[in-house]
Amino acid sequence: MKVRVTVMLKDGVLDPQGKAVAHALHVLGFGGVGEVRIGRVIELELDETDPVQAREKADAMARGLLANLVIEDFVTEVMA
Amino acid sequence: MKVRVTVMLKDGVLDPQGKAVAHALHVLGFGGVGEVRIGRVIELELDETDPVQAREKADAMARGLLANLVIEDFVTEVMA
Repeated sequence: MKVRVTVMLKDGVLDPQGKAVAHALHVLGFGGVGEVRIGRVIELELDETDPVQAREKADAMARGLLANLVIEDFVTEVMA
Repeated sequence: MKVRVTVMLKDGVLDPQGKAVAHALHVLGFGGVGEVRIGRVIELELDETDPVQAREKADAMARGLLANLVIEDFVTEVMA
């Protein structure tokens, strides 16, 4: 079962990487770009057939390793 | 209008970061984890009210800056 964990910085936490991308887009001539925020996606292939269990497992992994809960939020989705 | 671009390595491209995460999960006692692949998410606030236009603009940005099409694929979604 495939699970996707998306980790984004919490609202209000400064995102210098996003600012750099916004600047680069502007330099390249892409106008009308406001705030840009960068996050990461972790796709995990889990040895689990129950979607509820798979999700709980991925949540535990996110809390334990994949996300820094002080500054980041995460969302877990079961894909297939 | 908010647009999300998700960039993942193409199938078959080695993902050392994913391998490192899989190893770390194993060390932390999370069993039953198969392949792990890491990607990134870019959320853009665009000065655009038409979802079709917003998506086209984000596609152009992905092709021009956000993704390396030699080794990466991207997916664009209009969020709100």
